[in-house]
Amino acid sequence: MINRNIRLKISYDGTDFSGWQIQNNDRTVQAVLEDALSVMHKHPVRVTASGRTDSGVHASGQIVNFCSDIKDIPGANFVYALNSLLPRDVRVMESIEAEQGFHARYDAKIRVYKYYIISTKVCPPFYSRFCHTTRRVPDLALLNSYAGCLAGRHDFSTFTAAGDQSKSREREIYSAVFFNQGMFTVFKIAGNAFLWRMVRSLTGTMLELEEAGSAAGIMKGILESKNREKAGTTAPAKGLFLHKVIYDKTGNY
Amino acid sequence: MINRNIRLKISYDGTDFSGWQIQNNDRTVQAVLEDALSVMHKHPVRVTASGRTDSGVHASGQIVNFCSDIKDIPGANFVYALNSLLPRDVRVMESIEAEQGFHARYDAKIRVYKYYIISTKVCPPFYSRFCHTTRRVPDLALLNSYAGCLAGRHDFSTFTAAGDQSKSREREIYSAVFFNQGMFTVFKIAGNAFLWRMVRSLTGTMLELEEAGSAAGIMKGILESKNREKAGTTAPAKGLFLHKVIYDKTGNY
Repeated sequence: MINRNIRLKISYDGTDFSGWQIQNNDRTVQAVLEDALSVMHKHPVRVTASGRTDSGVHASGQIVNFCSDIKDIPGANFVYALNSLLPRDVRVMESIEAEQGFHARYDAKIRVYKYYIISTKVCPPFYSRFCHTTRRVPDLALLNSYAGCLAGRHDFSTFTAAGDQSKSREREIYSAVFFNQGMFTVFKIAGNAFLWRMVRSLTGTMLELEEAGSAAGIMKGILESKNREKAGTTAPAKGLFLHKVIYDKTGNY
Repeated sequence: MINRNIRLKISYDGTDFSGWQIQNNDRTVQAVLEDALSVMHKHPVRVTASGRTDSGVHASGQIVNFCSDIKDIPGANFVYALNSLLPRDVRVMESIEAEQGFHARYDAKIRVYKYYIISTKVCPPFYSRFCHTTRRVPDLALLNSYAGCLAGRHDFSTFTAAGDQSKSREREIYSAVFFNQGMFTVFKIAGNAFLWRMVRSLTGTMLELEEAGSAAGIMKGILESKNREKAGTTAPAKGLFLHKVIYDKTGNY
């Protein structure tokens, strides 16, 4: 009885998906991945991901694992077999043989998200699926003065959506910073886990504060209020990427 | 009688278009642009472009002009009116009031194309519409040793496709160079005009020569042979961008 645990790193363009998780007849990343795996294995295969992503959200480095009874494909070669069965907007970037006990969700120590903003009159069509557009170039120092209060363990109730079902609203943030990357302003945030829509809510709130020229101290007050009504508009899904999932506390992010 | 000449700079993701030029019932960039202009003008409007692009080829800076009888929209504001009517994969980046005599095709002095290559095992889904993938990182110096023979006036018969209907196969190349741009290898070529599929044929040929480790002098012999059978496989459309069209001999490229 063969019982292998295969770990995949996958990238997807979330534009044409109703998010990660299987639901009804919607096109989801989990569904197309499980379909490809089921064809390959000739029986149904279920996968576990590090976490869900919402409709329209992308991933550069989503991690999943699944149990395989295929004996003649080396771990690294699942990449080729799967990519030939997957649609163009999902790619398996890496595949490896994992330890038996590895669990993509429970073992994840750090999740890293990036939010891309382009500041231009008209967003070129090559980027418009993958970033949020602002007319004005935001002030990076001012944005970072808001982001500066996020590191540490906090109750993020202010920045979640109404439907969030987490028992605790406490999350630990290891790093939160805005920087320039090519023509983009990028917000990168690393934490142990995130509430539903938390990264988009944080980003939208800080962009609004910056637009209004609000003082640096305001963000801390909004965070501590634990009042959703103090948050700004949630930034659009299309700018958000699940960048990386880290399974080792000493991993780079 | 109002008779304005409006010049547009447009960008498009060519993936889901059957090229620039109107044909039958295919989805073409010219067709969707003329549809939007006709809605705006309440009568049919035809546009002239600097040149056609093939199915799957992109443009960052295609230039078009058209005659308008709309009196109350300043030239620069056609951008907003048109983008609200256009599909997401075509964007008007700039609009200006041109001189009466301006003609997007006849007046174009220099056309600049860029060809994007990514060298990786698996191309991430965010880039796969916009570049050609090679497994191995090509040797930039070797590629440039081939490209070095292209500048000047030459008969490019070797590098055109069977259906090309140009009277003369002579074209003048001002610059042809490979360089690194972020994670891409880019081939950039500027010339007065190009034969059908010439840039893709040049790129495909040089990539094959590099793969085979051919000596620098070989490319010149292939060019001078004027024999299509000496050219390599035409590189895929999706890596090619009409980057810029220049109407002034002193323009930067």
